[in-house]
Amino acid sequence: MQNFEYCNKTKIIFGRGTENQVGSEIAKMLPDAKKILLHHSGGFAVKSGLIDRVMKSLKGSGISWVELTGVQPNPRLSLVREGIEIAKRDKLDMILAVGGGSAIDSAKAIAVGAVNDGDVWDFFDRKKAADKALPVATIVTIPAAGSESSISAVITNEEGPWKRGINFQCIRPVFSIMNPELTYSLPPYQTACGITDMMAHIMERYFTKEPNVELTDELCEGALRTIIRNGRKIFSGGENDYAARAEIMWAGALAHNGLLDTGRIGDWASHALDHELSALFDIAHGAGLAIIFPAWLKFNINENNEAALTARLARFAAKVWGVDGAFYDLKQAALEGVYRMENFFKSIGMPVRFADANIDTSRIPEMVKRVVHFGPIGQYRKLDEKDALAIYKLAAE
Amino acid sequence: MQNFEYCNKTKIIFGRGTENQVGSEIAKMLPDAKKILLHHSGGFAVKSGLIDRVMKSLKGSGISWVELTGVQPNPRLSLVREGIEIAKRDKLDMILAVGGGSAIDSAKAIAVGAVNDGDVWDFFDRKKAADKALPVATIVTIPAAGSESSISAVITNEEGPWKRGINFQCIRPVFSIMNPELTYSLPPYQTACGITDMMAHIMERYFTKEPNVELTDELCEGALRTIIRNGRKIFSGGENDYAARAEIMWAGALAHNGLLDTGRIGDWASHALDHELSALFDIAHGAGLAIIFPAWLKFNINENNEAALTARLARFAAKVWGVDGAFYDLKQAALEGVYRMENFFKSIGMPVRFADANIDTSRIPEMVKRVVHFGPIGQYRKLDEKDALAIYKLAAE
Repeated sequence: MQNFEYCNKTKIIFGRGTENQVGSEIAKMLPDAKKILLHHSGGFAVKSGLIDRVMKSLKGSGISWVELTGVQPNPRLSLVREGIEIAKRDKLDMILAVGGGSAIDSAKAIAVGAVNDGDVWDFFDRKKAADKALPVATIVTIPAAGSESSISAVITNEEGPWKRGINFQCIRPVFSIMNPELTYSLPPYQTACGITDMMAHIMERYFTKEPNVELTDELCEGALRTIIRNGRKIFSGGENDYAARAEIMWAGALAHNGLLDTGRIGDWASHALDHELSALFDIAHGAGLAIIFPAWLKFNINENNEAALTARLARFAAKVWGVDGAFYDLKQAALEGVYRMENFFKSIGMPVRFADANIDTSRIPEMVKRVVHFGPIGQYRKLDEKDALAIYKLAAE
Repeated sequence: MQNFEYCNKTKIIFGRGTENQVGSEIAKMLPDAKKILLHHSGGFAVKSGLIDRVMKSLKGSGISWVELTGVQPNPRLSLVREGIEIAKRDKLDMILAVGGGSAIDSAKAIAVGAVNDGDVWDFFDRKKAADKALPVATIVTIPAAGSESSISAVITNEEGPWKRGINFQCIRPVFSIMNPELTYSLPPYQTACGITDMMAHIMERYFTKEPNVELTDELCEGALRTIIRNGRKIFSGGENDYAARAEIMWAGALAHNGLLDTGRIGDWASHALDHELSALFDIAHGAGLAIIFPAWLKFNINENNEAALTARLARFAAKVWGVDGAFYDLKQAALEGVYRMENFFKSIGMPVRFADANIDTSRIPEMVKRVVHFGPIGQYRKLDEKDALAIYKLAAE
């Protein structure tokens, strides 16, 4: 186990009706926040009446706002720039994101740009680090990204297109409101993308070379089992099953709040491999991960011959996917796990190969070049161009 | 799952050598803290050189201190009063506890008394609640109480004697330093008491009537398995096994940091039943719990006939103790779990009956009267005098 520091200051307010506390919570936690940016897609959150309830709650606590709508999946830098301009012009005190990871990440990027000089993209381009940002709070409507209590944000720069992320303590939300009822009406595809995304967040952490991280291994495996079981419930007529929606929602936050990282270094190659997919094809992040992760696993099962790594791959199959741990052949057990994972993804409507998502495989060479832009990716096994090509090819098979 | 709020602001600094960061961490997090109370037992922490290292680190950051030693297990109100007087007299800015739960709980009580008027015992006597306290930081030397990131403190008032607890957000430590190496030299009895204590913290939360708390069930079970496995390692010649000590130490903090509570209400009857034991006989908290918990489980297995509760008791046996889940007879499976738990406690040198700890059973009637002082105890099943008597009798068998 490595030395680590862990602190997560986001206050989680979880449960039925909690969105109506947003005004009083801001007044309590950020008494100086008089005028805020209300940031969302402008779509279903408006139609469903959620934004009306939010506005009522803000008004009730004497908080005024400027609205910035138009957030879309793979949130765009151009909208971030617009938000920064508004926040500076109107001297806004905080950003309230209502939505999923896209709205929250967009809000975080605005929060950084609003109080730091220079071009906000420089932070994503790894030219600068930020230690200050406007406070961000969230009302989560899509359990997926875990951005509601994370230090991460991912933005797409349309000019490249480039999809890149930042990780700064200062962008961790001050509070996040999570009402599972708000997720009843999600289209099944979005629910499935969310489930895949949070599973990927856990798996990126699970696949580590660090030995002696048993507690976090157990927590990762338990969270994954919970997501799989409750995902199945939702996709077996349980769209409005509060309990199942609540398990998924809470697991999505824990998946990415830093706890499952403690003492270990995660891999994150699959996220990098997917970022090129979504940058070029605008495919949903979760769907891209459903394609990439099985391929990444197969690559490691075949190419990685360190005993400890093979054991971890087999353990993953046994503990998470219930593969019988007879262990005559660890690689065989690990492959059976991947097979079951693919079946699960398919059962909730996710693609598992490029063809399922109409990805143009002729652009693989371009993706390979882009993905190693900053150097080799991953930790579990460092991947160079050749490895990335092999994984993309497995995804195309 | 119930609505909940969750926020844990304690910064955990975990790993080898981290105690040497204490001065710089105070300077960074609490720049106004110029003079602090350094609170510890005065025993092994001094002899081992730890206190010297702490003082050197404080000096290096320009922080001065007043020392208050003499903390003992089941920390005493009289020492707390002394600390409060010193903190007020010397206008101290924070309290640094070095030790286990006793030092930390004592520090928390001093922190409350130092900035609130009136008698500090009133807070323990449930006459008042506190919303302010001096900042508390800790260097943990005994993984057990989980007080390093909890909102709880338990103090013994020698006049009763009464042993009572408080739960206030304001006493949650601002940071806690946890170096597993500092626990190598713990006497086996203290290691075992700590293991039992942290297991009890998880079990108190695990045994809930709240349905649909699957994620936290999984996390509790995973943490318990990790503690049992690594406890066995330590007691099989692994006293200086960093990995095992680290798993135990981190699990002890997670056991009591609020995460495993989310969405559910724990039971806590066993803690109340043990508090009377330690108040009257000054038995270590962990040792008392090793006696009480099996008795509490047997009582519930025999007396509780709600199907969901029986299922949870059997699940505990299956998931934590590896009892074959054939499930022909859930009560039988649950009892097998208790049997294995008792064996585990015995294997690490814990008592499991009153006789093992030389408890005078003639005082059971007195304990029964005292334990229901504030009314029935527990949530999983509300226990009145008659039930408490039955459990103490099972512990005496």
